[in-house]
Amino acid sequence: MAKKPVIGLLGGGQLGRMLCQAAAPRGITIAILDAEDCPAKQINHNSLNVTGSFKDPEKIKILAARCDVLTVEIEHVNCDVLEEIATTGVEVPSPDGHGTIMKRVPVHPSYKTIRLIQDKFQQKEYFSQNGLPVAPQMAIESGDARIASIEQAAKRFGFPFMLKGAKGSYDGRGNFKVRASDDFEIAATQMGDQPLYAEKFVPFQMELAVMVMRTEDDDGNLRKVYPYPVVETIHEDSICTKVLFPPRNVAGGITQRAQKVACDVVSRLWGRGVFAVEMFLVGDEIIVNEVAPRPHNSGHLTIELMESSQFDAQLSSILDQFPSPDFALKPRYPSAIMLNILGGAKPDSHDNLIDLVESFSNPYAGAKLHLYGKESKPGRKIGHITALGQSSVEQLSERTSHLIRCMDEIRAERIGSTEAIGGSALQSGPTPLVAVTMGSDSDLGTLTAGLKVLKDFDVPFVVRITSAHRTPHHMMQFAAEMNNSGCKVIIAAAGGAAHLPGMVSSEVALPVIGVPVRASVLDGMDSLLSIVQMPRGIPCATVGIGNSTNAALLAIRILGVAFPEYADKMKAYQEKMKNEVLAKDETILSVGWEKYLNQQA
Amino acid sequence: MAKKPVIGLLGGGQLGRMLCQAAAPRGITIAILDAEDCPAKQINHNSLNVTGSFKDPEKIKILAARCDVLTVEIEHVNCDVLEEIATTGVEVPSPDGHGTIMKRVPVHPSYKTIRLIQDKFQQKEYFSQNGLPVAPQMAIESGDARIASIEQAAKRFGFPFMLKGAKGSYDGRGNFKVRASDDFEIAATQMGDQPLYAEKFVPFQMELAVMVMRTEDDDGNLRKVYPYPVVETIHEDSICTKVLFPPRNVAGGITQRAQKVACDVVSRLWGRGVFAVEMFLVGDEIIVNEVAPRPHNSGHLTIELMESSQFDAQLSSILDQFPSPDFALKPRYPSAIMLNILGGAKPDSHDNLIDLVESFSNPYAGAKLHLYGKESKPGRKIGHITALGQSSVEQLSERTSHLIRCMDEIRAERIGSTEAIGGSALQSGPTPLVAVTMGSDSDLGTLTAGLKVLKDFDVPFVVRITSAHRTPHHMMQFAAEMNNSGCKVIIAAAGGAAHLPGMVSSEVALPVIGVPVRASVLDGMDSLLSIVQMPRGIPCATVGIGNSTNAALLAIRILGVAFPEYADKMKAYQEKMKNEVLAKDETILSVGWEKYLNQQA
Repeated sequence: MAKKPVIGLLGGGQLGRMLCQAAAPRGITIAILDAEDCPAKQINHNSLNVTGSFKDPEKIKILAARCDVLTVEIEHVNCDVLEEIATTGVEVPSPDGHGTIMKRVPVHPSYKTIRLIQDKFQQKEYFSQNGLPVAPQMAIESGDARIASIEQAAKRFGFPFMLKGAKGSYDGRGNFKVRASDDFEIAATQMGDQPLYAEKFVPFQMELAVMVMRTEDDDGNLRKVYPYPVVETIHEDSICTKVLFPPRNVAGGITQRAQKVACDVVSRLWGRGVFAVEMFLVGDEIIVNEVAPRPHNSGHLTIELMESSQFDAQLSSILDQFPSPDFALKPRYPSAIMLNILGGAKPDSHDNLIDLVESFSNPYAGAKLHLYGKESKPGRKIGHITALGQSSVEQLSERTSHLIRCMDEIRAERIGSTEAIGGSALQSGPTPLVAVTMGSDSDLGTLTAGLKVLKDFDVPFVVRITSAHRTPHHMMQFAAEMNNSGCKVIIAAAGGAAHLPGMVSSEVALPVIGVPVRASVLDGMDSLLSIVQMPRGIPCATVGIGNSTNAALLAIRILGVAFPEYADKMKAYQEKMKNEVLAKDETILSVGWEKYLNQQA
Repeated sequence: MAKKPVIGLLGGGQLGRMLCQAAAPRGITIAILDAEDCPAKQINHNSLNVTGSFKDPEKIKILAARCDVLTVEIEHVNCDVLEEIATTGVEVPSPDGHGTIMKRVPVHPSYKTIRLIQDKFQQKEYFSQNGLPVAPQMAIESGDARIASIEQAAKRFGFPFMLKGAKGSYDGRGNFKVRASDDFEIAATQMGDQPLYAEKFVPFQMELAVMVMRTEDDDGNLRKVYPYPVVETIHEDSICTKVLFPPRNVAGGITQRAQKVACDVVSRLWGRGVFAVEMFLVGDEIIVNEVAPRPHNSGHLTIELMESSQFDAQLSSILDQFPSPDFALKPRYPSAIMLNILGGAKPDSHDNLIDLVESFSNPYAGAKLHLYGKESKPGRKIGHITALGQSSVEQLSERTSHLIRCMDEIRAERIGSTEAIGGSALQSGPTPLVAVTMGSDSDLGTLTAGLKVLKDFDVPFVVRITSAHRTPHHMMQFAAEMNNSGCKVIIAAAGGAAHLPGMVSSEVALPVIGVPVRASVLDGMDSLLSIVQMPRGIPCATVGIGNSTNAALLAIRILGVAFPEYADKMKAYQEKMKNEVLAKDETILSVGWEKYLNQQA
């Protein structure tokens, strides 16, 4: 096609700006309806842009007349006008130069989706009717019946429960947690006249989000939905402040289910584009919280993490470019953290954070700055930072802890409380790259030399005791865990009928290194043969009897295949080893073997 | 600092555009001097931009007055004005509101560098005086003395030799290859009155380029130079059309030397920024061709390949942001190919190519489109495509062969010759990820099962015969080659006093898998112990006697640590293996062991 449709965009904030940043290199023209100096127009200058409000019906029609398709960066738009444009059309000059004709302009996502999403109560009613997991809810009457209605909700849900505004709010703003009957009046007053609903309190341990790309044909039939990886979102003061990939300590099965639920949700909506599905994790249950029908804060890290960002996906979906239906959205890095830059107490409060990003790392150690060209106001999202990790998200959060602390300090100043500092609780130990296990603690002596090598090479590792014969289930569970944990190599030591290395290998797809331990008889030959002579199909990389040093060095060589830093360290180690022997040779040559022998003694 | 200096940019073409694309997320303001609708201004809209020519002294001064530092996206600018602005300054209103003052605005890179580079003859004279490797050259007289001067060059350099215009040309345009004395008059006529020089013809086998970032303090003292990885550049019709990383079949030692030479060159220039050093490879000799004092076509692939693109580096250098002096510029992918999109015979000739990128892969399989917002004209650079590979550049060129063919077709139509098609000669076999070697061809039988496994898993591998005892030097050379070739794992099989696996391991930093081959006596126990009982320091991953299947499977598990595709295949293989055994168990349970036995027979 090459001549691409012009996309009209309602709203030119940071989401629109990043959409334009994705569009320019692909030769896609975007016409923006928003104020003259909005973030998106700063980087998207053309004669099609319209100055005005994205809620103004006349301006929306002017935009539509200039475009081939409309999309939104915010759901709080005028749906009736969008419906009219998509169905009746907008008046444009006739191609033959005489009078005007009506031009229908498709709207993606559909005005039906946007209208549903605008009312959070109706949105969840719809999901519930479609068998999707949402928290129980009920509408709250307005006017004089309000307090009675809130009382009813308390009876139905017990304390605490949530009172939420159905319209116009986002990021958890406009919610009220009702803890006791004393709260009824306060809640009613504070929430005002807006349409309300009550929701059973969900005691979630974590908030998850999945971006989903939705594709459909020109007749509005669903083609396919594509889920992005699951992320963990962290909110403070009802604002998203951090997004983590992958979520911390969440099993693969749960994230797969979260993707499935998100896809089910988006399948039931209408139109093209990307959608953010926000969910609660309660135990191992997934509950849908709400959906944003557009690129979303939880998807910003896709810019660096994925081959194709959420903004690219939004464009591709709208333009109906779907080359490879089976394309897997695979992350390019094992972990990522997105930190929002929120305006602080003073207009320059965030300067420290930006300086820190640039001195710490940007652009030279993986943290990427995204500023939106917005004036700073307290609590306003004015930019974000994405940090990318080569190992676990916990390790990455350690590496970025000074950034997180700086964010906390800006927040503390803004909310006037020092309690905020250190409250993020993102810290924990690094995920091991190597797991070392033994059949019995009596093997630890044999392993010590190897463990020291791993330490010298700065390899994060974990040491476990898992006997093949005394704790077979424990051993298999350990192996299964390691297989899905980010661990890259397993070292297993055992003696006698040494089954541990081979059994572990049978459970994992990782390389397993076996260390034969010399038991009481046969000089270790029993251990060696038990480990090395594995049947075809299940390999076990065996090293010499008792040679845990070589097991560790082999593990490091294997890590070097994926991580150049370990390959470099290995080369340096070998160079050092060579030079030591050469030095000895020089000495023996100069002093003679007898003196050399005496020096050794 | 956070309040960043405003950068004034002379020229708003594609280089300026990509510089602005790097600047916006970092909150860096750029003011552009160029025509109103130039590529860079389309995506960089602000009140500081100046409309006009970047050669117009008055406009340059207007720009300088609005900025804190000046830079260029093209070297063909007015150096005298830049010198005046940097040394005398430009008139600006006095801060106290009374009259004007002179404001000095730094220029990066220095006007001295730009002036030197503008004259290619002087540029190389300077390099030569500084001991840098350049081709011998001599100035050619102008006017009546021209022909005699060309004759002198022929005597000095022999045929063929090059006649080159000293100023205003780039990408090899304006060069004339003089093949015989018959060419003298033609060359003199064709080259016209411009200043010329003659250069010894360099029979290079490849053109290499290195982007170098140069940092200096406020007093103009060099801090450090940082080389990007070496790339191979391919020119057709004197235009760069393709850039490959890494260069094909160039040893690591040579690319290291190319980086060294490039750093030496840039160390001797002046000012901050990135510099492209273009070089010829002749045998294993590096000869500097020319330098561009700015981001360059050969560095476009850094946008996706590196944590920090050449444009990021240009900005960081100008803003003097150098957090980590030892930061290594390491590629994020093993290979990359950049293809220029050149305007074809018709304004829409390139549409096919863009459609192909978008249907093939963009944004969903790794090829990234960069369009510059320029009108298409024959041979004009209007965009580029970057493809990223997970293995060798040869494999990547195979994967992108349909794009290359499409480029060739556009070119064929433009230059009116079908010879162009298939002339790019990018094809060759994939670089092996696994090298399999044996001490003797009699070991091949033992290895066959493993080789079949590698084939089934689509692993690119090479098979060699390198005897430890009959060809010790050949073996060590093979090992050294593999260590620097992109090969990730070595499988070595040997029998008897089986030294091959261990000796290979002693030469490389890669994981080496040893397969003990059963020799005529001792049932393979001699081979096993010779391989597994390596001394501390040099590990060898040993598998069961004759079990090359497991050697191959272990190699694939190791590849899985770096390449998720192999980890996925391994999981699928294990699942299949499990299901096969479970099916057998079901059968034996249902038919009984005796019938089962009969069925087997």
